[in-house]
Amino acid sequence: MARALSHFTGKSSLPSLSKSNHSRPSSLSCYRPMMITMMAQSQPYWASIESDIEVHLKNAIHVRPPVTVFKPMHCLVFAAPKTKASALCVAACELVGGDRDRAMDAASAIHLMHAAAYTHEHLPLTDRPISKPMIHHTYGPNIELLTGDGIVPFGFELLARSVDPAQKNSGRILRVIIEITRAIGSLGVVDGRYTEIRGTQSNGEELRDEDTWMEHVCKKKVGEMHACGAACGAILGGGSEEEIEKLRKYGLHVGMIQGMMMMVNGLGRKEEREMEVVERLKVLALKELESFDAKKVDLISSLVESNLCNV
Amino acid sequence: MARALSHFTGKSSLPSLSKSNHSRPSSLSCYRPMMITMMAQSQPYWASIESDIEVHLKNAIHVRPPVTVFKPMHCLVFAAPKTKASALCVAACELVGGDRDRAMDAASAIHLMHAAAYTHEHLPLTDRPISKPMIHHTYGPNIELLTGDGIVPFGFELLARSVDPAQKNSGRILRVIIEITRAIGSLGVVDGRYTEIRGTQSNGEELRDEDTWMEHVCKKKVGEMHACGAACGAILGGGSEEEIEKLRKYGLHVGMIQGMMMMVNGLGRKEEREMEVVERLKVLALKELESFDAKKVDLISSLVESNLCNV
Repeated sequence: MARALSHFTGKSSLPSLSKSNHSRPSSLSCYRPMMITMMAQSQPYWASIESDIEVHLKNAIHVRPPVTVFKPMHCLVFAAPKTKASALCVAACELVGGDRDRAMDAASAIHLMHAAAYTHEHLPLTDRPISKPMIHHTYGPNIELLTGDGIVPFGFELLARSVDPAQKNSGRILRVIIEITRAIGSLGVVDGRYTEIRGTQSNGEELRDEDTWMEHVCKKKVGEMHACGAACGAILGGGSEEEIEKLRKYGLHVGMIQGMMMMVNGLGRKEEREMEVVERLKVLALKELESFDAKKVDLISSLVESNLCNV
Repeated sequence: MARALSHFTGKSSLPSLSKSNHSRPSSLSCYRPMMITMMAQSQPYWASIESDIEVHLKNAIHVRPPVTVFKPMHCLVFAAPKTKASALCVAACELVGGDRDRAMDAASAIHLMHAAAYTHEHLPLTDRPISKPMIHHTYGPNIELLTGDGIVPFGFELLARSVDPAQKNSGRILRVIIEITRAIGSLGVVDGRYTEIRGTQSNGEELRDEDTWMEHVCKKKVGEMHACGAACGAILGGGSEEEIEKLRKYGLHVGMIQGMMMMVNGLGRKEEREMEVVERLKVLALKELESFDAKKVDLISSLVESNLCNV
């Protein structure tokens, strides 16, 4: 595992973590003492976002006829663990000055995509690695496959329907649809799951480099979903192109941290080197927020330190 | 099977097939002799549409790095049998006066959704009915599940990217996205596949009525996809609301015929009663085209009689 993380200190698709980057920049050196207070202040903020997304989703997928279709959908959407990619969408929207309501459909759609992927990831297939933990299959694999297939178009419908009557935001909605298709598609989450499967099956020559494998899986399965969430929130909130790209990078680093913490927790141990890499990712994440209004940035920046990140 | 079709002559969610409807309306009585010529004339038309869609799709999904992702996608997209729902999208666009190019992304997206559903329908799952024929699994179920998951967002991306630079058609594109999400989603194809599985497993009390079961499966799996294809083509071609709804109904009837013919061919026999019901659906389909320009309607209307419909 320690070896698996060593690439973060060398060449990588992530921004260079050279020695000069490793030390906290002076403008960020005050974050550590501030964080204790910020974390306490920010927890109700993240909780309120997650609560709002849950209410929004429950209204969108209330169980109605045909119950045989909507009950499994309702159950499987809420059975999936929450992803901070959804909450980040709302927080990014608010950071650039948008109302929370503007990002609610996109945040819900991101959770739906995550829930569909989670459901399909746990289907019992004949060539599924034995070590992959299975969820409790209440409805049976056939229904879970179909429900996953139904959740994805529902997410896109939710987004497409969120255009205002005057269609002034149609360009933004279409852009968000493209962002989400790329994050969940063949070059996004699907690629990450594919690489993960091939790595765990250990039959690919090119997968012998564990460092590359782990970076790729973390980036595609978790990092880019968070990058997408933050970028979509900034787009819908009316952020500038610069703000959108800074928040996309912030989301990528936060998602990478979360992906690595999930892997670390899955292994049941924390090594000094792994935590050092996480610390460096936190510095990079916070650096992306430097140009935003300091008064507004506290809430969103708390995600890199809080336990919320370490699910 | 004969009993399974009897509902088409009684109460049904389809338009009433009462006695007065059963006899061909005078305005349609000339269709039969005309059809022999029309079918011969129209086959190159449908072939040219299908060829154009294939070229468009091949350009969109050319095999590129990572080959491990795009090669299975390319193979599985073209391994799925063609659906006339895609061709109908282009034909409907042209009927209402739109250029073929306008409908090409939507027609391709419809084929992609169909290919993803076809791939997932043939996955070997532990509770899959034994009688369900399996496709040749070149890549293994895991990769086929993932590829199906990747094809759907790619279809939506293709659509969302088809907005013209001035974004004048963004409203139409968003409407088409909603049409497609509904056709493939939990109240569309997924519902049809779910009902089919429950029917073949024969353990649901409410599924004892074979008539309802067969109608529902045909309508959801095939009929509504064709209805969606025709409606999307009319939307993109600039058709009026009346034209869109007439073409939607035309597509539904054509799709129902195709679904029934697929079931009949699957059973390996044709019964007089089944063919009688198909004939009545043809009459209903053609009736929806009566108000269109007679000079333009020949090509699209040929679909109800030609062998193209009886795949």
